[in-house]
Amino acid sequence: MTMQDTLISLAHGNGGRYMRELIEQVFARHLRGSVLDTTADAVALPWDSAEGELVFTTDGFTVQPLEFPGGNIGSLAVHGTTNDLAVAGAVPRYLSLNAFIEEGFDIATLDRLIASLASAAAELEVQVAAGDTKVLPRGTGGGLYLATTGIGVRPRGLSLGMQNILEGDAVLVSGPVGAHGIAVLLAREQFGLRGDLLSDAASVLPLTLALRDLPGLHFMRDPTRGGLATVMHEIAHTTRVGVSLVEEAIPVQDPVRSVCEMLGYDPYYLACEGRVVAVVAADCAATALTRWQALPSGRAAAIIGHMGGAQPGRVTVATALGGERYLEELEDDPLPRIC
Amino acid sequence: MTMQDTLISLAHGNGGRYMRELIEQVFARHLRGSVLDTTADAVALPWDSAEGELVFTTDGFTVQPLEFPGGNIGSLAVHGTTNDLAVAGAVPRYLSLNAFIEEGFDIATLDRLIASLASAAAELEVQVAAGDTKVLPRGTGGGLYLATTGIGVRPRGLSLGMQNILEGDAVLVSGPVGAHGIAVLLAREQFGLRGDLLSDAASVLPLTLALRDLPGLHFMRDPTRGGLATVMHEIAHTTRVGVSLVEEAIPVQDPVRSVCEMLGYDPYYLACEGRVVAVVAADCAATALTRWQALPSGRAAAIIGHMGGAQPGRVTVATALGGERYLEELEDDPLPRIC
Repeated sequence: MTMQDTLISLAHGNGGRYMRELIEQVFARHLRGSVLDTTADAVALPWDSAEGELVFTTDGFTVQPLEFPGGNIGSLAVHGTTNDLAVAGAVPRYLSLNAFIEEGFDIATLDRLIASLASAAAELEVQVAAGDTKVLPRGTGGGLYLATTGIGVRPRGLSLGMQNILEGDAVLVSGPVGAHGIAVLLAREQFGLRGDLLSDAASVLPLTLALRDLPGLHFMRDPTRGGLATVMHEIAHTTRVGVSLVEEAIPVQDPVRSVCEMLGYDPYYLACEGRVVAVVAADCAATALTRWQALPSGRAAAIIGHMGGAQPGRVTVATALGGERYLEELEDDPLPRIC
Repeated sequence: MTMQDTLISLAHGNGGRYMRELIEQVFARHLRGSVLDTTADAVALPWDSAEGELVFTTDGFTVQPLEFPGGNIGSLAVHGTTNDLAVAGAVPRYLSLNAFIEEGFDIATLDRLIASLASAAAELEVQVAAGDTKVLPRGTGGGLYLATTGIGVRPRGLSLGMQNILEGDAVLVSGPVGAHGIAVLLAREQFGLRGDLLSDAASVLPLTLALRDLPGLHFMRDPTRGGLATVMHEIAHTTRVGVSLVEEAIPVQDPVRSVCEMLGYDPYYLACEGRVVAVVAADCAATALTRWQALPSGRAAAIIGHMGGAQPGRVTVATALGGERYLEELEDDPLPRIC
């Protein structure tokens, strides 16, 4: 497929194949030659700061509803962008903030969301250094959209990236997957479902700092749009090494599992907003796991598979029943606008 | 008035009093204590780069129609943000890009707009270093919204800002005002007007670099939302010095003047996207003017007034008929979504 579509569909925003092709064929094609790396969470800027290397990233936020159990678009706009810096090995320092506010939006709600954003930033000691607001005429906005761009600092010489991944490496996840996707879905009244499930939305900085000095650490990523399966697929696609995961090892909370069964979703494709996937040398896996499990946000961390053993470039899951299934690249939209 | 409104109105986005109050009372209130300066175009980051001081800014773009005579939302997203860096005395270097695309948007149009964005960036030797795309469900977007965050470098020790402005300083503008606002308005079919007028949307970098080493340069700003009048009002409000402008000295193109007369707009409140207002020491005014007039984009530059002579904190315009009128802070929305 090569952009045979002529109109944008929701699937162009889901983190899967259509989105990858849109980015490659429209955005990356025109912006080629720049330092833009569409496969990285954050890029290094060429300035030599005394504190380390400066790292740059950006993210947009359009979650509906704007407030959901465990978070809201304000805190998410801080965590989403700072998490991209964190998995690149950086400590987030500054954010810019763009707010697109729809005419008719309730100012008290706006105030609550921005207070939550400010408190998430303060907790991370991150400063909002620049901002802009635009008002969208009624009927041309979703209440509130946010975009944040972040700058962080990381130690010079830290090499993290898919290019470091080797056959035999272990794959870890820092906690149960899919809770953000399901919590947002339950908060939408149209499904008529209720539950006590909270989104996992949170800063992953403690998790990434815990592994940053591990010599065998090769790669970290927060599995947001498209979930765990999409990160794994991207690793397999880029490295041309197969990925073998073990279903029983992948943590999924019971309420997430039951909603997924009811609605026919695969939890591996659902967004997390506070988890990290790490790929580490096999002989470091136990240390990485111990470090994560010592943290409140890493208690349920697990080694969920390894690089190799599957067909090159593909992701397989060994099922509890002794079978094997492929995790294909996401095409349809399992759950729009979860971030 | 202290946010007696409970809902967001279009006037909260027009660059005038409502917007200032929304920013002060919601955004700045919660984000207090950070380096955020809501009166500056760009802020300095505390890193000591070998090339100079790093400067940071952000801007959102929601112009309708997306393409207008003389520009489009793609090139505007580069010029708008890099112009904010330029008037802060910096050379723009890196941008991040957020695209919010509405479901059903034409991919060929998107491609054209991003190509234009890329070409504006390439012309400025600015790199798009990070990006993100989100798709908005049909009916919750305006086709395409963009946000760009920019990082630039400026010489250490350069002091520009309203705090430098002194009574007696001269006020200059680099070219005719209001063309962007009117060009966008004419591009909207609902007015049934036609004209050959082009938007002034362009990079102001040549203009700002031409004045940057002038010892008497105190302040520069690009008069976007709210136009020349809003910049002048902000200077008067902040410095508590009056501003005296001379109507006959302020360049306005004939088509802009006639459309304004027909529709009852004041050109001084209309957005420019490629002009600079500079405040310089009186003994530097002639040099500044000569430098600007030597540039293609500054040929119609003019000294349009001076600091002082009016009531402290207010802006007066000496009219062609020998009278005097006040330019008050903008309250109503003269022309929504021009940037």
